[in-house]
Amino acid sequence: MSKSSPAPSLSSQLAVSGHVDLTTFDSRATTGFDGKKADAAKALAAIGEELDGLQEKLFAGGRSGASPTKVLLVLQGMDTSGKGGIVRHVAGLVDPQGLSITSFKKPTATELEHDFLWRIENALPEPGMIGIFDRSHYEDVLIGKVRHLVDDDEISRRYIAINDFERSFRASGGVIVKCFLHITPDDQKERLAARLDDPTKYWKYNAGDLDERALWDDYQDAYAVALERCSTGNGAWHVVPSGRKWYRNWAVATLLLEQLRALDLQWPAADFDVEAEKARLAAM
Amino acid sequence: MSKSSPAPSLSSQLAVSGHVDLTTFDSRATTGFDGKKADAAKALAAIGEELDGLQEKLFAGGRSGASPTKVLLVLQGMDTSGKGGIVRHVAGLVDPQGLSITSFKKPTATELEHDFLWRIENALPEPGMIGIFDRSHYEDVLIGKVRHLVDDDEISRRYIAINDFERSFRASGGVIVKCFLHITPDDQKERLAARLDDPTKYWKYNAGDLDERALWDDYQDAYAVALERCSTGNGAWHVVPSGRKWYRNWAVATLLLEQLRALDLQWPAADFDVEAEKARLAAM
Repeated sequence: MSKSSPAPSLSSQLAVSGHVDLTTFDSRATTGFDGKKADAAKALAAIGEELDGLQEKLFAGGRSGASPTKVLLVLQGMDTSGKGGIVRHVAGLVDPQGLSITSFKKPTATELEHDFLWRIENALPEPGMIGIFDRSHYEDVLIGKVRHLVDDDEISRRYIAINDFERSFRASGGVIVKCFLHITPDDQKERLAARLDDPTKYWKYNAGDLDERALWDDYQDAYAVALERCSTGNGAWHVVPSGRKWYRNWAVATLLLEQLRALDLQWPAADFDVEAEKARLAAM
Repeated sequence: MSKSSPAPSLSSQLAVSGHVDLTTFDSRATTGFDGKKADAAKALAAIGEELDGLQEKLFAGGRSGASPTKVLLVLQGMDTSGKGGIVRHVAGLVDPQGLSITSFKKPTATELEHDFLWRIENALPEPGMIGIFDRSHYEDVLIGKVRHLVDDDEISRRYIAINDFERSFRASGGVIVKCFLHITPDDQKERLAARLDDPTKYWKYNAGDLDERALWDDYQDAYAVALERCSTGNGAWHVVPSGRKWYRNWAVATLLLEQLRALDLQWPAADFDVEAEKARLAAM
C-alpha cells in the first residue's frame, strides 16, 4: 500500500448504514486483511503492541484526572460467535488494570426492579478505562423482542432510550465501538458439536442454547433492526465476519485500535513542579 | 534438579513465620530462580501457559456452579515496589474475563461510614475468579498506624478482624496469596527519579509519595507487625524481593501457580445429558 493512497479504515468497511439484510453477509469473509491465517498471529501481536501503548495513555489521562475519555466495546452475537474469545484474545492484549469487563446474564430480580438501562449505567467504564460488554443493553431489544418479553411499544421506547443513552455517554467523553459477531447456523452447529465432544468444554454448553438456536431467523431479524436503528453518529454497528476465529480477533482488535488512534491521546502534563520534586527527592 | 528430590516450593522459601525484621531481607535476591535476567522472560511465558490453563479450569468451576473456589492475590508494598507491574505482567498472563482487579485508594466518604472491611468484602472475587487487590485491608493497619489515623486499641481490633475475615474467606472456598513487594529506599529513589525524568511517567507520580517516603522506617515497622500477626493458616505472607522487576514478576507468578496447582482443579461434569443434546443438535 502506498502512503499516498491510504487504505480505507476497517471501520468504514465493516460499519453498516441504511437497510441491513444479514443474509447478504459472508461469515467467512476476511475483509481488509491482507494475508492468510498463518499471518494473523503476527499481525495481532503487532496490533497488540500499539494497543497496549495507547491504552496506557488513555489510562494515564483518566487516572490523573486530565481527561474524561473512556472507550466501550460492545459485543453481541449468537452463542458461540466468540464474545468470550474476543475478551481473551483482544482484551488480553492490554494491561488488565485498564479493563472493566461485564458479562451480562439474565437480569436478576433486583435488576428487573429497575429500568433496563440501570445495570448498564452502573457498568459503564470510568475515565481512562476500556469497558467491554459481553452482551449489553441490546439484549433488551433482541431477546425482549424474540421471546415477546415485552410488547412492541416497549421495544420502540427502548430504542429511543438506547440512542439517548449512547448520545449521553458520548457527550461525557465516551467512545463506543459496537461489534456484531456474524456467524451462520452451520458455523454454530460445528462449534456446539465441538463443545459436546470435549469434556473440557462442557461447562460452556447450556441446554438452553439449542432453544435459542431454534429461533435463529427471528434473532437475525431482530439484530437487523437493532443494527439499522442504532448505527448513529454515537457509534456505528460493525458486522464482523466471525466464521474464522483468527479473522474475528484481528478485526475487532483493529476496530479498537482505529478508535484509539483517532482519539489523539496525549500524556497528561505534570500537576506538580517537576524541578522542585527532583530537588526534594535528591535531598532524601 | 532430579525428580526424586523436588525443589522446595517458592512459597515455602519466601513465606515468613515468627519474628520479622525486614532489614535482614535482600531486595535484590533471586531466591528460587535458577538463571539470570535473560532467562526470566522465557520462564515467565512458560508459567503463563500453565497459569492460563489452570485459570480456565478455575473459571469453569465457578461459572458452572460446580465449585466455590476462588483465589485472592493481595499486593502490598511501598510506592514503586511494583504492584501495578504485577497486574500488568502477571495478571496479564491469563484471560482477563477471569480477573477481578481492585485498586484501593484513600477511602471515600461513603466507605468511611462503614467498617474498614466493608469495601473489602464488596470487592472479594466470586467463585471461579482470581481477585487481585492492589493495596488492601492491610492499609488500615499500616497507614492507619503510621499516620495515627486511629488509636492502638483500634489497630489491635483490626488485626483480630482481619484474621477473622481471612478465616471466613477461606472457609467459603477462598485461597489467599499475600505478597509484600520488598524494596529498599535506594530502589525507590531510583524509580521515583525515573518518573521525574520521563514526561510519559509523570502521571504515576504524586507529590504525596515523598511524604510517605519520609516515614519509611515507620512503615517498615508497621509492615513487620502485619506480616508477623497475619501469617496464619489462612495464608502466609511472602516477602518478595522486588529490587529486580523481572525476578519480582517471576516470583509472584510462581506463587500464584503453586497455589493453583495445589487446588487440584477439575473440569466440571456435564449438567445435561450429552448424548441427548448431540441428538437434538444433529436434528437442527
